[in-house]
Amino acid sequence: VTTIRLAVEYDGTLFCGFQWQPSVRTVAGVLETALSSIFEATVKVSAAGRTDAGAHATGQVISFKTTAAFPFDKLVAALSSVLPRDLSVRDAAVASDGFSARHSALERTYVYAIRNAREPSALVARYAYHVWSPLNLDDFGDGAARLIGEHDFRSFCGVLPEQGTTVRHLSALTVECRDDLVRVSLTASGFLHRMARTIVGTLIECGLGRRDAASVSAALAARDRAAAGISAPAHGLYLAGVRYPEYDSFREPPLFAA
Amino acid sequence: VTTIRLAVEYDGTLFCGFQWQPSVRTVAGVLETALSSIFEATVKVSAAGRTDAGAHATGQVISFKTTAAFPFDKLVAALSSVLPRDLSVRDAAVASDGFSARHSALERTYVYAIRNAREPSALVARYAYHVWSPLNLDDFGDGAARLIGEHDFRSFCGVLPEQGTTVRHLSALTVECRDDLVRVSLTASGFLHRMARTIVGTLIECGLGRRDAASVSAALAARDRAAAGISAPAHGLYLAGVRYPEYDSFREPPLFAA
Repeated sequence: VTTIRLAVEYDGTLFCGFQWQPSVRTVAGVLETALSSIFEATVKVSAAGRTDAGAHATGQVISFKTTAAFPFDKLVAALSSVLPRDLSVRDAAVASDGFSARHSALERTYVYAIRNAREPSALVARYAYHVWSPLNLDDFGDGAARLIGEHDFRSFCGVLPEQGTTVRHLSALTVECRDDLVRVSLTASGFLHRMARTIVGTLIECGLGRRDAASVSAALAARDRAAAGISAPAHGLYLAGVRYPEYDSFREPPLFAA
Repeated sequence: VTTIRLAVEYDGTLFCGFQWQPSVRTVAGVLETALSSIFEATVKVSAAGRTDAGAHATGQVISFKTTAAFPFDKLVAALSSVLPRDLSVRDAAVASDGFSARHSALERTYVYAIRNAREPSALVARYAYHVWSPLNLDDFGDGAARLIGEHDFRSFCGVLPEQGTTVRHLSALTVECRDDLVRVSLTASGFLHRMARTIVGTLIECGLGRRDAASVSAALAARDRAAAGISAPAHGLYLAGVRYPEYDSFREPPLFAA
């Protein structure tokens, strides 16, 4: 049995999220169909992040086990010939025994793209959340500072985990502005359901003057979803990279890469 | 009668080109429908460049005349509320009498995006032409140098113009590389049908070692379409800017803007 690790990029617009579901187009479904046809055997994948419907990825990592005798150095080319244009595999490698894209991950980094301008932009509309009113990035950053570190993020969680804690360690949360694009980067060992989008949505409310940094701390303390802000829409979100003991899949989203 | 000038951006993927055609979705058709509904009267637009099916624009300029009494400073907002997500107007202004987006233009600039890498990229696939084999950019540039200036570009023309010359003045043709993206910029007072794409396709053949710079000069001299290279695909092409005596619409495509 060989364990394979893939670095995967997708435009999430036309996918109903990562996770396999019957009858709808998902990233896992399209990947498993492609891999099962290449290996002529059923393949089930494990992923570092189960991204929401509409969210993108530049550095998603998946793993699977196979007993097939396949020249794995040709796997990227084999996948390129069968995958649709909005889903690509940029790297494939034989991983150590016991490697799991999900359980071996040390840290995930999400990047959230906001376009803050008075007029729309057709070529950016699928890839950044358009905020029409001017954002004050100092206020945005003051709110962000309250969230860095280890906290109970229950207020920032959509569907609660079936078991385990809602405490997470947010090791980095940065905000940068380049012309009319705002880049928010969030790094943590793990994220709760909708956590990245709810953090960004809450900080946007800070940037618009609708709440202050103290209310962000109050939202953490409340342990109540209603105390935090809206979830920012999925189409601004990218799973940009996953760090493992011996591998880092980070790739900057194209909007910020030039 | 008021003459209005608009700066227009579009993702060309789902448009059958700029020019109005019956029964299919075109940029002019969607714009004219939106403008006619806002002004409650038929509007016909003139454009600086009639881009091909699949080609994008960041700096297309259009003009039209209207007798409507409309608060034109609200026109961008009015259009934003009715245009689809892949077509946006970023600027609207009252132009001087006699202004025509097409006839008043001094110079057009097209940008062509090539991705030169061994593996595909889902988030770039719609917005750059993927060339798998390594391009030699010195050879690409040597070919480009043969085309700058005033020449008869008949060999680089698809459908010949109904009247007039095929001589054009290509005032600038530059090639730059940033990581795996190649940016080609072409500026001329006017372009023949498919001229930008056929120049880029021919220079890609230079970069791949399939022809040399001398053959580019020979292609010009031949005045025969068969002497030039293939036309590079439309999805790498952007109408990036149009220069007028008192206005310049240039905007860098998002892939190169960060």
